[in-house]
Amino acid sequence: MTISQIGEFGLIQRVVQKLEMGPTCLLGPGDDAAVVVAPDSRIVASTDVLVEGRHFRRDWSSGADVGHRAAAANLADIAAMGAAPTALLVGLCAPPDLEVAWAEELAGGLSAEAGRVGASVVGGDMSASPTLVIAVTALGDLRGNRPVVRSGARPGDVVALAGRIGYAAAGYTVLSRGFRTPKLLVEAFRRPEVPYSAGLAAARIGATAMVDVSDGLLQDLGHIAAASAVAIDVTASAFDVPSQMRDAASALGVDPYAWVLAGGDDHALAATFPPDVDLPSYWRRIGTVTEGAPEVTVDGKPFTGRTGWDHFR
Amino acid sequence: MTISQIGEFGLIQRVVQKLEMGPTCLLGPGDDAAVVVAPDSRIVASTDVLVEGRHFRRDWSSGADVGHRAAAANLADIAAMGAAPTALLVGLCAPPDLEVAWAEELAGGLSAEAGRVGASVVGGDMSASPTLVIAVTALGDLRGNRPVVRSGARPGDVVALAGRIGYAAAGYTVLSRGFRTPKLLVEAFRRPEVPYSAGLAAARIGATAMVDVSDGLLQDLGHIAAASAVAIDVTASAFDVPSQMRDAASALGVDPYAWVLAGGDDHALAATFPPDVDLPSYWRRIGTVTEGAPEVTVDGKPFTGRTGWDHFR
Repeated sequence: MTISQIGEFGLIQRVVQKLEMGPTCLLGPGDDAAVVVAPDSRIVASTDVLVEGRHFRRDWSSGADVGHRAAAANLADIAAMGAAPTALLVGLCAPPDLEVAWAEELAGGLSAEAGRVGASVVGGDMSASPTLVIAVTALGDLRGNRPVVRSGARPGDVVALAGRIGYAAAGYTVLSRGFRTPKLLVEAFRRPEVPYSAGLAAARIGATAMVDVSDGLLQDLGHIAAASAVAIDVTASAFDVPSQMRDAASALGVDPYAWVLAGGDDHALAATFPPDVDLPSYWRRIGTVTEGAPEVTVDGKPFTGRTGWDHFR
Repeated sequence: MTISQIGEFGLIQRVVQKLEMGPTCLLGPGDDAAVVVAPDSRIVASTDVLVEGRHFRRDWSSGADVGHRAAAANLADIAAMGAAPTALLVGLCAPPDLEVAWAEELAGGLSAEAGRVGASVVGGDMSASPTLVIAVTALGDLRGNRPVVRSGARPGDVVALAGRIGYAAAGYTVLSRGFRTPKLLVEAFRRPEVPYSAGLAAARIGATAMVDVSDGLLQDLGHIAAASAVAIDVTASAFDVPSQMRDAASALGVDPYAWVLAGGDDHALAATFPPDVDLPSYWRRIGTVTEGAPEVTVDGKPFTGRTGWDHFR
């Protein structure tokens, strides 16, 4: 059954049934707008668009996978401000021949991922479109925390990372070469495991800057370096490369550190902390902030290419 | 100059320069997420997607026009809850050959329309896409008001309308027949004039239900009738049909009441009020709420077609 067979209102009815409203939702789908709690009196908000063929492929990921990924990418932005996600709003632009079941799975994936952090899909919109596009907006509450922006890193600060890194990029490479395993890597691409609570914890223990690693660690640390006018040096030995990633890299002729340092889609969190910080175990030290021109180096040497680990070794 | 020539970051830099941040914006574009004031401790949020060829045409509307319309459609949803708009977030999916100037105009239009109500475009995202899609999320603050939902209308209530109606639908018909005048109607389609403050005022004087008229007055009143389990009767003589609309209708062989009663894109606000309400002049009475099956009639008779004024006369 396709969307064109049941129409917009039929589709909305089915999709809304896949959504579970949590306590942050005061008024859910069905009115002109939703109403969401904002106890802090400041709201954190971020939007991401996902375009088929560019951000996801239906032959690589199920509707539920795409829902999880779309939600995760947005919720990670909220976590990276040191806030607790409260709500998602979703705009779905879909070709009329899209299977209704796919849209239902998408809604289920979005709702399930939001539910992991106590957030809900509170509203949305739908339209026919030649291109399948999913636009997600995430809202969050600061819970009294100062928002952790990109511009607060200071020379002497510790650089730390929470969450997995390189897994999703490895999974993407595996899929793009036509393989479906190793499952660890492929699943990491399909459904990133975002360390949501590490964002809130970082704000509480005094993170000076934080960023969601969506474009690759070095590039995203570069945003902190630029905004804070500092230099950042990363220590390559700080990263564990699991055996499955090492084996896949070897089989595909790729340097695994290219995935780790330049791959983005895990939505890990990277942050800077004062040097005397007592880091919880899920934040691991990966480098230091120094004075100097705003650049990011690895073991003291510049990184010169997108996947060019060889270039700076 | 096209988007592909300057890239995503070049485009973001140019577009952000077109945005003006007002006092509701605590942290604007450039970080993982924006931060917006929410003094009421409840946030009202709504998303609309606009797809080229479906919601707008570049040969009918300038980039600035589309920006105004996209913002207005979303801000009207916030006003229809009885809230004050605070922020917009915008996802832009654009073909690489889109002119940069068009995107800049779009941003300028979005920002200018938001500025009319003291809101700001606080964040967004961009991606390449074969189809031009604009996804807008609007946020608003209830300022201590109870949210005005669709389900609160009661038999005996007065039905009232704020804002113009039929103008945008008439402008759309004029444009779709290849004309560019009358300017009054064409401009009403390009840049709707939404009675934003009437929404907040309605909440304060006790509106029992309210809706943004986006799909046509009778259809949108039908949402109130269904949600409130009441019948609504509209009085045709309550509507002024301006001479330019009457003349255009006559020239095009259309019944102007089809535009007024079934045309949506003006984003007027329709609401119900207790019978003893003292309505301000910009809310005009157009009908009554009665007991009965949830339907909307005109002068006591059913409306049977989308543009079928003749069918129920």
